[in-house]
Amino acid sequence: MKLASLKGPGRDGTLCVVSRDLTRAVTVEGIVPTLQRALEDWARVEPKLRDVFESIQGGHERHAFDFQQALSAGRVAAALPRAYEWLDGSAYLTHVERVRRARNDKVPESFYSDPLMYQGGAGAMMGARDPIRAISEDWGIDLEGEVVAVTGDVAMGATPAEASQAVRLVSIVNDVSFRRLIPAELAKGFGFVNGKGANALAPVAVTPDELGTAWDDGKVHFRLVVHVNGKWFGNPDAGMDATFSLFDLIAHAARTRELKAGTLVGTGTISNKDPATGYACLMEARLVEQVEQGEAKTPFLKFGDTVKIEMFDHQGDTIFGAIEQRVEKYAK
Amino acid sequence: MKLASLKGPGRDGTLCVVSRDLTRAVTVEGIVPTLQRALEDWARVEPKLRDVFESIQGGHERHAFDFQQALSAGRVAAALPRAYEWLDGSAYLTHVERVRRARNDKVPESFYSDPLMYQGGAGAMMGARDPIRAISEDWGIDLEGEVVAVTGDVAMGATPAEASQAVRLVSIVNDVSFRRLIPAELAKGFGFVNGKGANALAPVAVTPDELGTAWDDGKVHFRLVVHVNGKWFGNPDAGMDATFSLFDLIAHAARTRELKAGTLVGTGTISNKDPATGYACLMEARLVEQVEQGEAKTPFLKFGDTVKIEMFDHQGDTIFGAIEQRVEKYAK
Repeated sequence: MKLASLKGPGRDGTLCVVSRDLTRAVTVEGIVPTLQRALEDWARVEPKLRDVFESIQGGHERHAFDFQQALSAGRVAAALPRAYEWLDGSAYLTHVERVRRARNDKVPESFYSDPLMYQGGAGAMMGARDPIRAISEDWGIDLEGEVVAVTGDVAMGATPAEASQAVRLVSIVNDVSFRRLIPAELAKGFGFVNGKGANALAPVAVTPDELGTAWDDGKVHFRLVVHVNGKWFGNPDAGMDATFSLFDLIAHAARTRELKAGTLVGTGTISNKDPATGYACLMEARLVEQVEQGEAKTPFLKFGDTVKIEMFDHQGDTIFGAIEQRVEKYAK
Repeated sequence: MKLASLKGPGRDGTLCVVSRDLTRAVTVEGIVPTLQRALEDWARVEPKLRDVFESIQGGHERHAFDFQQALSAGRVAAALPRAYEWLDGSAYLTHVERVRRARNDKVPESFYSDPLMYQGGAGAMMGARDPIRAISEDWGIDLEGEVVAVTGDVAMGATPAEASQAVRLVSIVNDVSFRRLIPAELAKGFGFVNGKGANALAPVAVTPDELGTAWDDGKVHFRLVVHVNGKWFGNPDAGMDATFSLFDLIAHAARTRELKAGTLVGTGTISNKDPATGYACLMEARLVEQVEQGEAKTPFLKFGDTVKIEMFDHQGDTIFGAIEQRVEKYAK
């Protein structure tokens, strides 16, 4: 089942069920108005939404609208337009290794058993076609392509096995980062606030069964394809080189707190050891250039630049639709 | 005007307007169902809520209920039962100085101009009488008494003056911390996830005018009175020794992102230079003991322990009602 949200009338948007090929969608106000509400009442709501999905797959939804048109018109919000918790891990230690190597540092041994994770803001998720907005290009604007799980309620102290039962939806995310603000902020010791911007979700989030056998033990075994200004930038496999699964990351997040329905847990930037797979963030390319060529050559994003992040199944069909964003100067 | 939320029927609770003396309250479903919704539509809703407040003050609300009874019965939720962003500053550098002094370290000069701030979880705020729950006493369970602002929408890059226009409500918060988990977590460099638990809000949140002249330039010039297991533990003045005002902290939080209505911005643990004012968290007492007596003597909280955090006006009347919590072992 694939789900999306249209913008308005409220800030949580309007839930809709989308056909597998992302051509048609239908709102489901008669069942539940928003994805947040659906997640809070999943046991009751999910079967009804699945009925609608079967119906739209069979071409039996008379009120279906053109989802691609809605997307182009900017009417599609993030599948979850705002979330109470955004907990972002670092499952791909290749990414961390490259950061550390560039400063002649090693990854602490503990990072391979105790996940790095930060808490970010998710009160205003960007839709997949919304602009990335910043006041200054000097912030060092970067993308980060990741996989994200949308959870149901998770008990404090949940094990990875228990966490596996709480994954309601999977999607991909662009975790926008302001690289030049990060070193000074992290040096203060309390993590990221200014160094991270709003995040974008793909047009749809899907139930794990949509991933078929590629959904295995909390990892998504598909490649994330990243383009910057229309040029291929990377296609790392999200199922490879992940030290931690989404189940591990959810369990880590829940170690000392309950997670409530609608929590977003991210994998961190996808990164493979094989350099031929490129990168899912600019910084990593810059760090490798710095080590191998003596200086970082890949520029950070400037106003007018575009990024595209997408994941395809083995038939080459898009799973979540593309995150396609343009960088713009923020105007109050 | 004073506002609170009753628990249920949904996760955002039911908004009610509370009399100044916290004896009576009335739900306002006819105006707006929840505080979150009210904050999203404040210009339209606030005057109507103020009419109800005047009416309940005048004794003209026929449907008013006994607020104290509801509180005792555990029916009162956090005024904002869940929030999209919880951005907690460190306005009181005395607190930071004591932490640093205990490890023979100085506070970096930049901390006096660039606020320390972390992003925490607020998807499940505790009501003022809800238990503090932890799986283990070994976590080093601590309270942190703070002032918190509930904001409306704030533009990216807002100045402190602009931020001042966005403070909708003020309250007090218990920012529960797990001290023994924090050093290893902060050493990883990404801030707090496991080291912070759910937070509790006082029974009511109030519009800034309720604070009278004690609300001055984004600071609350009243003392926060803290008791642990029924014994006085501190009464630091929230208006003293604050390097940053709530306006400064909101502006810092909004430097690279929009803040959306219902964002919580905290001051960090209130702390005065004068040691006679005691402490608003256990750790600070322990650090001073360590430096002055060679070892920390104040224990962290154990199951069954109680904390009480309250703020009084110049007449000795409670402003927000007391946060009164008991520590309990978490059961799934």
